[in-house]
Amino acid sequence: MTVGVSVQSSGPETAVAVWNAGGVNPGALAPLLTADVDGGTFRLRHAVPADLPAIVALLADDSLGAGREQSQDMAPYEKAFQSIDADPAHLLVVGELVSGGAESGPVVATFQLSFLPGISRQGAWRSQLEAVRVAESLRGQGIGNLMVQWAIDESRRRDCTLMQLTTHKTRTAAHRFYERLGFDASHEGIKLML
Amino acid sequence: MTVGVSVQSSGPETAVAVWNAGGVNPGALAPLLTADVDGGTFRLRHAVPADLPAIVALLADDSLGAGREQSQDMAPYEKAFQSIDADPAHLLVVGELVSGGAESGPVVATFQLSFLPGISRQGAWRSQLEAVRVAESLRGQGIGNLMVQWAIDESRRRDCTLMQLTTHKTRTAAHRFYERLGFDASHEGIKLML
Repeated sequence: MTVGVSVQSSGPETAVAVWNAGGVNPGALAPLLTADVDGGTFRLRHAVPADLPAIVALLADDSLGAGREQSQDMAPYEKAFQSIDADPAHLLVVGELVSGGAESGPVVATFQLSFLPGISRQGAWRSQLEAVRVAESLRGQGIGNLMVQWAIDESRRRDCTLMQLTTHKTRTAAHRFYERLGFDASHEGIKLML
Repeated sequence: MTVGVSVQSSGPETAVAVWNAGGVNPGALAPLLTADVDGGTFRLRHAVPADLPAIVALLADDSLGAGREQSQDMAPYEKAFQSIDADPAHLLVVGELVSGGAESGPVVATFQLSFLPGISRQGAWRSQLEAVRVAESLRGQGIGNLMVQWAIDESRRRDCTLMQLTTHKTRTAAHRFYERLGFDASHEGIKLML
């Protein structure tokens, strides 16, 4: 598929400045990237609190995530959003599907990108991708690819020399996806529930 | 091996307060944990800038890390230390080997522990362990076990519900070590050099 990509020159600082003004219309946020897809325009932007129900629905619409989320009480998610929002080291991003002429549209994709300092690799900053999701109905159109490419570019812009993520070993399609983008499954991803 | 463990009641806030006073003697930092080992007392504490050469030496004394570090110019490491030190979400920790009666001793172990907010898993905080190293001469005494147990306890204290790390697939002894501690190698650890 060919998508028309238009990466905006406005950096995340611009978007954060608008966002912190409070009570924002999500449509007013500067897009990080736009692309033509089936059904309209895919627009990547910083998340706002009003996006949380849609983000949680994307996280829950997944074989592994289904049992881990609950949408009856949004308070824990709102608290987490505040922690992410308060720290410029973490970006919570959503993708909207905007129909022709509309200001905004439904949230159909999300990811979190974090920037982590460390001593190893000559004091390298590394970026970390978490909770990457694209709505089932929009898969196969290159949206995941656009999002991860944006995350790679943003990581380079912030002088990260390494990008990392973990995916469950059962997600074999995801492994092939990341390998096509140049990632290497060189490590074991080891977890402990506390 | 049996080690005598004495976990101090002073939390990291205490240590950070002392550390930020500037010009500190490393020996003045409150220990996070002490244990009797061969050759003296193992004492875990927050790292200070003067520890950087020893930390870099530990990172370089490793089959995978050897080609990634350089000790001629400490400036990149000092800059990274400042980034870690400025953000309470990241703890850089060292273990000293203190001989009887001494105030401090050589740095023989290190790790970084980071606390990351996220939306998934009902807004769970997760902790992440990076760059865990124990000096070759002190391995097999349970020092790694003590450090990771401390990190688990600290992660619980900070309300994390998940702890994670990646280790290179060639580090099979490390995989067995983490599995004995209850970790599960459920994920692929995927990296991209930028």
